[in-house]
Amino acid sequence: MAEDDVVFVGSKPVMNYVLAVVTQFNGGAKEVKILARGRAISRAVDVAEVSRARFLLDVSVKNIQISTEVLNTDRGETNVSAIEILLGK
Amino acid sequence: MAEDDVVFVGSKPVMNYVLAVVTQFNGGAKEVKILARGRAISRAVDVAEVSRARFLLDVSVKNIQISTEVLNTDRGETNVSAIEILLGK
Repeated sequence: MAEDDVVFVGSKPVMNYVLAVVTQFNGGAKEVKILARGRAISRAVDVAEVSRARFLLDVSVKNIQISTEVLNTDRGETNVSAIEILLGK
Repeated sequence: MAEDDVVFVGSKPVMNYVLAVVTQFNGGAKEVKILARGRAISRAVDVAEVSRARFLLDVSVKNIQISTEVLNTDRGETNVSAIEILLGK
């Protein structure tokens, strides 16, 4: 998978990220990885579901992983959950 | 899996649900399913990660599924994403 076949979901509207996913598949990608941390995890699931159900009917969820990442902040280390959703044809 | 080996995550603090998960495993459950919809999805991932990493070191994530559910509200049908995280020994 090329490095740019990754969509990192943050706080923008869901459709911004859906557009990014659809664009990558239409550009020839066979798989696209959707990544998110913390509260953006819910939005990442929305992005995967909307992309799959509404725009990319030949694409399905291949794998989902969750993990805990350690972030260094001003106030010391803090843990944040992360998700990785792999969509593929 | 018995019907009560399910923890439905809503808007309470993460540790409330972690306690429910840990209690079910300590009560003999071999698998516990964590369910959530919409914005609670991020919290469900936190519940799974905290349960696994801090309290149940012999438990791992067996499967994760995402889906779209149709809710009937006053203003008509609306779609909401859902997640199902299966933890098991």
